[in-house]
Amino acid sequence: MASTYKRLKQILFGRPLASDRLEHERLSKKTGLAVLSSDNISSVAYATEQTLIVLAVLGTAALSYVVPISGVIVGLVILVALSYRQTIFAYPQGGGSYTVAKDNLGTTYGLIAAASLLTDYILTVSVSISSGIAAITSAYPSLIPHAVSLGLASIVLLMAINLRGVRESGMAFSVPTYVFIVMMLALIVTGVYRGLLGQEAAPTVGPVRIDPVSRAHVGISTPVGFALMFLILRGFAEGCVAITGTEAISNGVGAFKSPSAKNAATTLGWMAAILATFFMGTSYLARHYAVMPTPNETILSQLGHHIFGNGALYLALQYSTFAILVLAANTAFADFPRLSSILSGDRYMPRQFAARGDRLAFSNGIVALAILAMILVWLFHGDTSSLIPLYAIGVFICFTLSQAGMVVHWWRSKDPGWRWRATLNGIGAIATALIFVVQVLTKFTEGAWVVVLIIPSIILLLKKIHKHYESFAAEVKFTGHAPLMFLHHTVVVPVNGITKPVAGALVYATTISEDVRAIFVDVDQGAGARLSAEWSAWDIGVDLVVVPSPYRSVLKPIADYVKKLTDSGDAELVTIVVPEIVPRKWWEHLLHNKTALYIRTAFLFRRNVVVTAVPYHLGHSARLADLMSHDEMLDEEIEAGAGEALLVEAGHK
Amino acid sequence: MASTYKRLKQILFGRPLASDRLEHERLSKKTGLAVLSSDNISSVAYATEQTLIVLAVLGTAALSYVVPISGVIVGLVILVALSYRQTIFAYPQGGGSYTVAKDNLGTTYGLIAAASLLTDYILTVSVSISSGIAAITSAYPSLIPHAVSLGLASIVLLMAINLRGVRESGMAFSVPTYVFIVMMLALIVTGVYRGLLGQEAAPTVGPVRIDPVSRAHVGISTPVGFALMFLILRGFAEGCVAITGTEAISNGVGAFKSPSAKNAATTLGWMAAILATFFMGTSYLARHYAVMPTPNETILSQLGHHIFGNGALYLALQYSTFAILVLAANTAFADFPRLSSILSGDRYMPRQFAARGDRLAFSNGIVALAILAMILVWLFHGDTSSLIPLYAIGVFICFTLSQAGMVVHWWRSKDPGWRWRATLNGIGAIATALIFVVQVLTKFTEGAWVVVLIIPSIILLLKKIHKHYESFAAEVKFTGHAPLMFLHHTVVVPVNGITKPVAGALVYATTISEDVRAIFVDVDQGAGARLSAEWSAWDIGVDLVVVPSPYRSVLKPIADYVKKLTDSGDAELVTIVVPEIVPRKWWEHLLHNKTALYIRTAFLFRRNVVVTAVPYHLGHSARLADLMSHDEMLDEEIEAGAGEALLVEAGHK
Repeated sequence: MASTYKRLKQILFGRPLASDRLEHERLSKKTGLAVLSSDNISSVAYATEQTLIVLAVLGTAALSYVVPISGVIVGLVILVALSYRQTIFAYPQGGGSYTVAKDNLGTTYGLIAAASLLTDYILTVSVSISSGIAAITSAYPSLIPHAVSLGLASIVLLMAINLRGVRESGMAFSVPTYVFIVMMLALIVTGVYRGLLGQEAAPTVGPVRIDPVSRAHVGISTPVGFALMFLILRGFAEGCVAITGTEAISNGVGAFKSPSAKNAATTLGWMAAILATFFMGTSYLARHYAVMPTPNETILSQLGHHIFGNGALYLALQYSTFAILVLAANTAFADFPRLSSILSGDRYMPRQFAARGDRLAFSNGIVALAILAMILVWLFHGDTSSLIPLYAIGVFICFTLSQAGMVVHWWRSKDPGWRWRATLNGIGAIATALIFVVQVLTKFTEGAWVVVLIIPSIILLLKKIHKHYESFAAEVKFTGHAPLMFLHHTVVVPVNGITKPVAGALVYATTISEDVRAIFVDVDQGAGARLSAEWSAWDIGVDLVVVPSPYRSVLKPIADYVKKLTDSGDAELVTIVVPEIVPRKWWEHLLHNKTALYIRTAFLFRRNVVVTAVPYHLGHSARLADLMSHDEMLDEEIEAGAGEALLVEAGHK
Repeated sequence: MASTYKRLKQILFGRPLASDRLEHERLSKKTGLAVLSSDNISSVAYATEQTLIVLAVLGTAALSYVVPISGVIVGLVILVALSYRQTIFAYPQGGGSYTVAKDNLGTTYGLIAAASLLTDYILTVSVSISSGIAAITSAYPSLIPHAVSLGLASIVLLMAINLRGVRESGMAFSVPTYVFIVMMLALIVTGVYRGLLGQEAAPTVGPVRIDPVSRAHVGISTPVGFALMFLILRGFAEGCVAITGTEAISNGVGAFKSPSAKNAATTLGWMAAILATFFMGTSYLARHYAVMPTPNETILSQLGHHIFGNGALYLALQYSTFAILVLAANTAFADFPRLSSILSGDRYMPRQFAARGDRLAFSNGIVALAILAMILVWLFHGDTSSLIPLYAIGVFICFTLSQAGMVVHWWRSKDPGWRWRATLNGIGAIATALIFVVQVLTKFTEGAWVVVLIIPSIILLLKKIHKHYESFAAEVKFTGHAPLMFLHHTVVVPVNGITKPVAGALVYATTISEDVRAIFVDVDQGAGARLSAEWSAWDIGVDLVVVPSPYRSVLKPIADYVKKLTDSGDAELVTIVVPEIVPRKWWEHLLHNKTALYIRTAFLFRRNVVVTAVPYHLGHSARLADLMSHDEMLDEEIEAGAGEALLVEAGHK
């Protein structure tokens, strides 16, 4: 059965890889763009749409705000990318916000960054998968009722791919990214070209379908003054989701081929350029074609219909949108386990997250991420617009901390050009801090409060775990030198009769100590006397102690006996050797009392008491017990041509 | 926490009772009637009703058949009671059908009886509780939607009472039985008296409300000829449910005070007389008042309304009906665990069912019965008429086997009067066998087929369990005499550094063997070399073996090393001593790898390998490890005034 499991595991996840193959798993620039930029680039699938959903109460007037808002966001994209370019060169081993904030601002800021990042990685998976499924259901509306199941299935698939290891997923995922880039370019170029020719202006100028939920939130009347400003700010806050994922490349510098910093910086530049183009293009086209959000079809799908019609090009756009969003989720599958591993190494997360699995992937982190993201998709019914208000908040905390950390870094290092470098990172920090404030203020009641509660909770948890490991390390630290031994080691063997499992336990007991006592708990008056008689006849040199148990408990009399031994000072150390039946079939377990297990549990907290189970394998020849049967065994051993010299008769008899 | 659990357990179930209090828990005749007859007597609450439900398609004509059918059944009640009276004297220790059938007809028939009884005890609980709840919902129709929950809660309560032990439940349950007997007598006497005076004849002779379900089964037209005969036979079969429970007293003879046989026989006579009176009376009154079954009110409740009105007398009838039906379920709570214990003693059921718990009750059997009965109530939505077709079939198998066994018993014993005794039991056997055939034939499609499938399955299961225990007993049987010892016992201690838990494990290892090897699995190249250097400096006389693990597995290199040791013949027996961290709080378990557990599991099936976990208690002074630190410890030991003589420095240094 164990080997069936092993084979199944290998079919699903591939054969184990040796540690020295780690280097070969690294990313080229092209593959790096596919694996690490998808989170960032794919946000064009929902960023414009989220802005429009907020502004929908303005009717078609919304369309006139979307382009300027997008322009401001693109400016921020470039600013943030320039900031992170500096981080890449300063931290060529991979400068995640956690590392940068911890190194430069101290542990607490590092943990704030870590908690924010963990939250956002989970949300990246949930949001990207939900949005990806929306791309599919836009093309096939009959799938809408199955959206949640499809989302959960996609996450399971991603988990399986990532458990196989990073390079293979990089290769498998390169094609769809580049197809998406090509399709988006085709969409934008065709759309803008037609727009410049003046063909196909906004087809309808009448009432536009408006997401009823958004309208209900703000009220029916068109807002003016402060209300309008708030609305535009909220639209801007939602659109800023486009900037998420910019940090992915600087977190993953270490995964690039050498020279990794240079390769990562180039990839970052490409990523920012692509995102800026696509985001501006989408917003421009949405205005040009007067496309407004609807619950059942995405903005990108509507643009696809307007520009490509209903044919193969439209479907290629939708499939590649789905594919790049799956890739975006995959970015989190690379980053979450890596951050968990770093945190685990720093003793802030359970050590199970530290180690790479058979396939060099951080298996536990991958599984944990998948489970948490699936819970979110399930809770929010796979609805992107419900998840978005929670998203991006953590990202901007990290951006701010990371840039602020860089300012300190330059200040301390005094590297050439440190003044303008610090200024650039400083502007980045201020800008992202402002966006964070706008995010929290405008989206607080929409769900942002959840994040505001969760991040501090995670920080407390990380600190609590750290405290445990620290005190553990201090406690187990060994300072002494001279080893000492117990002079008197008593072994107690609970017996229920004269059987082979008992004989096996007695052989083991006499092997590890001179002082062995068999103990029989007499729940049924009379049985003890009978066994005593048999025991004397057996005459193996081990005394049998019969203890009565009027209350029919088996454990308590043994515990009392052992306590008497240790309290009286008769025994410095007591080992309880319990015969344990190991059945052949699972159901046979139900037919045997789990005495060994109960005794282990009962004595787990008793000092200087060790419980040892000596297994007796049903249906196999059990060596330990057979040793007791001298005459038969010795012949067998001699025949086997080995071992007879290893057997001596015990001196008891 | 353990003591909180213990206290809670004592509050719920009382303090443990010593085994020698068993005798005092026995039943007087009055209490015996309350505890053991309730199953039988309480069947008047549904027996007449089930007959009428079947006959309902005949309209009010049904009423003319119910009295003669009941008459025949009462004749059978007396016959079966007389048969069982003989069993009581022949088996004064408690002659359940299983014992009688096994002793006289052989094991297979014994097992058929046992399987039938187990099935019927479960159904007794389900049917009685469902019917009891129907008595309550008849009085309070607003409770109808909660019927299932009320049923489940009643079973849980019964379980708790029975876990407290048998005498207390007998006392607590006596009053309601006698109240029911008084209320039923009052109902019958008042009803018959008025009937004889000619007052209050059938108030409505027009169309009578008919259970739509029964009608649907048979068709709308009034049956004649063969169909009518079949219907009457089915009505008779359903009415025979009144006879169930007759065996309870002869099963429980052993629970009576001395002279137990005589007391039991007297009680059996009273029980039969009471049942016969009540059953005949109910059927007569149903005809007299032309009462027909309805889904929401029981026959007994309708009679109560007719005869007592809506006042206190009516409510007393309903409550006492509920109470005696709960008692009926309680009979099964006495018998099922007792039979399980007997079967367990004969190795046909898991041995966990054999032993009495703290309160002298067979705890496991009680819990198992409660769970199975609750599943049935839940599956059948607490509907008595759906459960009844499954019921009684098993009972009549047992009646037949038990009486047939008694015929053989008399034949063999040739006791005075064996001829007429054998004849009486023979007539009983033939009568009950005929009823069994009628039951299966008339109710087969109504659910009886389920029982026909389940009983053979249970028999197979019992036989399979028996086979396992038999082969287990044969296998572990010990025949040899001279004990032998292992000459060479090697201890392997997996270490991850020089810490107190490791030191503790090493102290234990050197205590139990001369040949101790520490093993370090090197998953991260370089760590091994560092530890080797530290280890040499530590200089404790135990060699450190560093094994590389390029695939990062911790278990496999240890397994390979141990295999090499045993295969080469270097070690006859290997003990792996693993340090095990025992945290203070439950959540701390999540922060430590369960290495000890994994190693135990990995080596469970390896011959001549024993795994011992040496616990290291976080937050407590851990003696084993502290022993390694000579200077500090010795002083402490001397201060403590004891034990210093028990410590010797290991010869290694």
